[in-house]
Formats: sequence, C-alpha cells, structure tokens
Amino acid sequence: MQRGRFITLEGIEGAGKSSQIAPLAAYLCARGLEVVTTREPGGSPIGERLRAVLLDARNIAMSETAELLLMFAARAEHLDKTIRPALARGAWVLCDRFTDATYAYQGGGRGIDQAQIVLLETLVQGDLRPDLTLVFDLPPTLGLARARARSGQTDRFESETKQFFAAVRACYLKRAQAMPVRYRIIDATLELTRVTELIQTHVSDFLIDNARDA
Amino acid sequence: MQRGRFITLEGIEGAGKSSQIAPLAAYLCARGLEVVTTREPGGSPIGERLRAVLLDARNIAMSETAELLLMFAARAEHLDKTIRPALARGAWVLCDRFTDATYAYQGGGRGIDQAQIVLLETLVQGDLRPDLTLVFDLPPTLGLARARARSGQTDRFESETKQFFAAVRACYLKRAQAMPVRYRIIDATLELTRVTELIQTHVSDFLIDNARDA
Repeated sequence: MQRGRFITLEGIEGAGKSSQIAPLAAYLCARGLEVVTTREPGGSPIGERLRAVLLDARNIAMSETAELLLMFAARAEHLDKTIRPALARGAWVLCDRFTDATYAYQGGGRGIDQAQIVLLETLVQGDLRPDLTLVFDLPPTLGLARARARSGQTDRFESETKQFFAAVRACYLKRAQAMPVRYRIIDATLELTRVTELIQTHVSDFLIDNARDA
Repeated sequence: MQRGRFITLEGIEGAGKSSQIAPLAAYLCARGLEVVTTREPGGSPIGERLRAVLLDARNIAMSETAELLLMFAARAEHLDKTIRPALARGAWVLCDRFTDATYAYQGGGRGIDQAQIVLLETLVQGDLRPDLTLVFDLPPTLGLARARARSGQTDRFESETKQFFAAVRACYLKRAQAMPVRYRIIDATLELTRVTELIQTHVSDFLIDNARDA
C-alpha cells in the first residue's frame, strides 16, 4: 500500500489555519482519500495534557529549554500514536502546526539556537518531514486583532509582543523561501473563501505531481 | 562566594534513598551549610506537573522518546528554577535521582540508545554534573519487596519486571565503577542506621577533600 501524505498548516495567530482544515479535509475526502486532521501541540492523549501545561498562562516563566523539550516530547507521542500509524495505513494527515512552528516560535521568536532544534528534529522524527507545508502569511497586527476578536482572551503565546510575532513571521517566510518545493505561501489577508480556493489549487497541483510520481 | 556542591542519591525502588535524605541534610546543616533537598522527576512547579504525567500508570503506552524528552524537560526546569540558583548562592543541593537515573532506567532498562541521552544531557546541563553521587545498591527482589510493603500499590515504574530492574541496577554499577571519583556505592541491604553512618563517612571524606581544594 502507498504511504499517505503529510500536509502541515503553519502561520501566526489569527492567520486562519484552523478555519481551513475542515474545507481541505472535505476536498481530499471527496477524492476518495482517508484524511486524519490533527494539531500541535497535542494530537494524542498525553500530547493534549502537555499542551495544557505549555499554553497555561501561569507558566509564563517556563525556561526556554524546558519549553523546547516539552514541545518535542508531545511531538514524539503525536508521531507514535497518531501520525505514523495514519501514514502507514495510507491516510493523509492534515496537521495544524508542526516542527516549522518550533523553528518559528522557539527559534525565530525566542532566539533559541537553531542547531538545538535541528538536533531534536532528527532525534524525534528521523527522516520524516511534511510532504507539503502551507504557510498562512499576514501582518501580525492583523492576525492578533483577529485572534483577540475571536477568543476574547489571550493565552501565553498570544500575549507576546508584536516584535515577537514579526520575528516568527520572518522565520516562516525565510524557511518557505529556502525550500520552495515543500512550502507554499498563502496570502492570509484575503477573504476566507478565496483562501480556501488558493489552498485547493496548491493541493490539487500537489495531487497531480503525486499521481505522476506514484 | 563559593559555589555550593551538588550531591545526588541514586538507586532502584526500595533502596532507601528517600529515608536517607533528611539525616544527610541534618548532618550538613550541623556543619553550617545551607542545604536544599529536592527530587526528580519534579523539583519545580512545572516539573511536578510533568512528574504526574510520567508516573501516571495510565500512561504506560507512552513512547520511549516522549518519556526521555519529558524527563529532560522537567530537568531543564528543575535546573533553572531550583538547582542552579541554589548552587549559585552557595547552598548544597541534595537531589533524590538525577541524570544517572535516566541512563539507568531509560538507557539500561528500556534500551534507549545511550548516545541520545548523552546528547540531551549536554543540551540541558551544559557542563554541570553532580559533584558526588551515592548509588544505593541492593538486589531488585529485596528493593521491590520493600517498595511494595511501603506503598501498598505500584506506579508505572514499579510495575516493571524483575529483569528490567536487574538491567537498571547493572547500569548504575557500571557507571559507578567507570567513574570512581564521583561515585560511591552504598550497600543498601544494611540496616538504616548503618547506611546513615556509611553515607556520613563518604560525605565527610568529600567535605575534607573539598576543604583542601577550596
């Protein structure tokens, strides 16, 4: 059986990733594919418990190294319990954030040495990388205004400064530009329906390439 | 001001480490030293939340890599919030289990590649290592009988097989024999009061060496 494909959605708060997962899943299901939608941090019972620790605003003083290791602990569990079994049985996995978010938030945002992230990525993932990564791009001020309007409150990442989110965005764009085969940058300032169309175009192209390679 | 000293107590379940921390702390306090007693996993507010996830018997299916990273996440937080600040102000830190337990349990017991542990040890600790490590040694059957008599129930580590604990013990002994300057092996089959005396002898020798080097 052919291994499934692994698609990740990335971007800062308020970029609209979460709203686009369901339409994308429906689009792929309509083509006869089994689709698993998941998210990080979380995506497994233990992962969700760790997500609660990570997002808890009371833990704002967590050391950077502890945060980095906790992210990858949750990811190891997510891969073991959810992602690898799904891909192995031929399902397509749509994941709301993955290791690119670690590079962007802990690396770009908090300034953690990128070499440490590379090292943990290899330790936890081996050679597994997403097949396609959609980067939802928009100015942080717009994203944060949307996120605030939606939730009425802020978690510990959303309470970071605008400068922090500018660094996160810059890191996402830099990675997308450096690896154009895997990444697609989506203009997330557009209307929801237009973003849905753009994503379907990118994924349709990916399906065609994929069918050709198969 | 002189940096404090970092002493760790290691050994399998039922070895009597926890019973010996208080007498050792009293012995050092009586010599005018500030003493901080702590434990792993745990030792900080976030660390204690992670300890609960790690020891929870419901999580028996946690992936080995997730467990390893969670241990080091808790350790990073423990170092940042408790151990490094105490050592920096000149306090002596007595810790019930530390990275030797990761080598023994995850490495020796579960067979995780030792190179991964070395890599995470460096990432989290830099060049910080305990100054003195007391290894409480006894046959696993005796240790487990003691642990069961004490608690009346088993957590997820205590429900492991005898073979597992034999591998843990062998790993502790191997490390102690390979690095005799840092390690002291304590015969934990002896009576509590005799073990307390042995520890005081070892720590007294260490204090003398320490005073000579200062």
